[in-house]
Amino acid sequence: MRVMIHIDEADTWRDALAERLPDAEFVTSDAPPPQRRGIDYLAAWKPPEALLRELDDLKGIINLGAGVDALLNNPGLPKDVPIVKLRDAGMAELIGDYVRYGVLHFQRDFDRYRRQQARREWREHAVDDKGDWPVGVLGLGAIGAKVAAMLAADGFPVHGWSRSPKQLDDITSHHGDDGLPELLCQVRTLVLLLPGTPETRHIIDAKTLAALPEGASLINPGRGTLLDEAALLEALGEGETEGRLRGALLDAFPEEPLPRDNPLWSHPRVWVTPHMAGPTPLKEAVGQVAELIEAFEAGETLETVDPSAGY
Amino acid sequence: MRVMIHIDEADTWRDALAERLPDAEFVTSDAPPPQRRGIDYLAAWKPPEALLRELDDLKGIINLGAGVDALLNNPGLPKDVPIVKLRDAGMAELIGDYVRYGVLHFQRDFDRYRRQQARREWREHAVDDKGDWPVGVLGLGAIGAKVAAMLAADGFPVHGWSRSPKQLDDITSHHGDDGLPELLCQVRTLVLLLPGTPETRHIIDAKTLAALPEGASLINPGRGTLLDEAALLEALGEGETEGRLRGALLDAFPEEPLPRDNPLWSHPRVWVTPHMAGPTPLKEAVGQVAELIEAFEAGETLETVDPSAGY
Repeated sequence: MRVMIHIDEADTWRDALAERLPDAEFVTSDAPPPQRRGIDYLAAWKPPEALLRELDDLKGIINLGAGVDALLNNPGLPKDVPIVKLRDAGMAELIGDYVRYGVLHFQRDFDRYRRQQARREWREHAVDDKGDWPVGVLGLGAIGAKVAAMLAADGFPVHGWSRSPKQLDDITSHHGDDGLPELLCQVRTLVLLLPGTPETRHIIDAKTLAALPEGASLINPGRGTLLDEAALLEALGEGETEGRLRGALLDAFPEEPLPRDNPLWSHPRVWVTPHMAGPTPLKEAVGQVAELIEAFEAGETLETVDPSAGY
Repeated sequence: MRVMIHIDEADTWRDALAERLPDAEFVTSDAPPPQRRGIDYLAAWKPPEALLRELDDLKGIINLGAGVDALLNNPGLPKDVPIVKLRDAGMAELIGDYVRYGVLHFQRDFDRYRRQQARREWREHAVDDKGDWPVGVLGLGAIGAKVAAMLAADGFPVHGWSRSPKQLDDITSHHGDDGLPELLCQVRTLVLLLPGTPETRHIIDAKTLAALPEGASLINPGRGTLLDEAALLEALGEGETEGRLRGALLDAFPEEPLPRDNPLWSHPRVWVTPHMAGPTPLKEAVGQVAELIEAFEAGETLETVDPSAGY
């Protein structure tokens, strides 16, 4: 059985997988053509169209991350090949820590202190208690639910929103079209953890931003397409004065790397990070990939991605 | 019974205390002289020497914070007046959140991403697992113990150090002169939560900094005197390259406000915050002050500060 790997640092994955499944053959996507024939499975993160077209006899595709939007939108994706994705491999907790840092960044005024340091200004701001700092989490999948639970355990009141109704301990749940403005009007920090689908594209636009309270802040460790960038810049305001939206911590962008001429890089109230909130921990991920290949080979029923739903 | 209040925004404290103890009389330290006679108790944060000399018939002093070093070093302090200090009034958790933010700042490379943003550089760093990021906490009093417990619950291995032996759940304890280098050599972030005493002055100097592993980071939400500033700057290195010490998040300084010409303000790897890590939450503190006054009046035995120990 032959498995092709396409991801950054594919050699590391190949070696770790070969050790875990010694009877399988693993090749990286940059291997010379003779080695690229007769591939049974593709384990990949954002494979190029040409690669997908070349692999015309796949039994299964393993998406090496949580987001499948890039793969599903690839015109080279074969129609009837089952796609599976990794379960949370420690990623939710990593994203949870990113969000925890971001919420404290605003709740404890670190954003303001950072700007004050540049002016050598010693001035303390009164702290708003965590209990008076409701956080909204849009998207309550495996990652959103875990992040919401971490924030609630830290002492923040947490509101969650999903398309269909969900019940989660210690979280105030909202759902559907009516639930969204209901959540937005009462949160001081909004966290975006929705999948990137046609329905969620620009879900945060001028209208939804205007529904947030004055001085709210935004954290996007999710998908770049969730956010209308022009509306975001408008809400943040220009120059040194805080706008209606106090600040944003952004890890995902429609085009990555974020182009050098993008105004977000130099905005005084925007924190840009290079899509680092939720890397897949290699060891745990390799174990999952090996198990999925074994399950495919054994003919087990797997939980596959639904391309029409987009996740 | 008459109580004088000396602290920033003393009016707010006076009004809240008057509501809690309607039979007592509360005056602020800026009240006109006739109102300043016959004071029984002083509730104060860093009272000036002249004020202490003026109040020559006190039954007790209530220190409105955790650190008593400024009060004990005040030459105007009357000799035989019992001093009590506030128990943790939510301050430990506030300091815990400050430290949590600081540890994530280094563990998740937010310090590097911040500098990268200034150059518009999109580059991801591999994440070191929290389990591989031991944190050292110097000082295991009420605040240090709580902060250590919060970090351990977050998933960091935590080493604690105190002068005399202490046993705390989920914390590796070290103590005494031999225990300090033992702790220092194995932590990636060092947190200073010791009281400011003659013994702890410059406990972090060139020698102790050299005992930390290459690339360690430092968080000081404690006392400014714990740290030898010249040694700190030396360990941080100059210019754009990280030194042996990767960075420092500092909230306490020997002179506050930090003077405008202090080089820490502009060091690229130093985060200066204006002593905001552990403000005393007013409501909880007011309740404690009222209880202490009632206990003094009732002649109860109170846990008082030992001036010879310094805490």
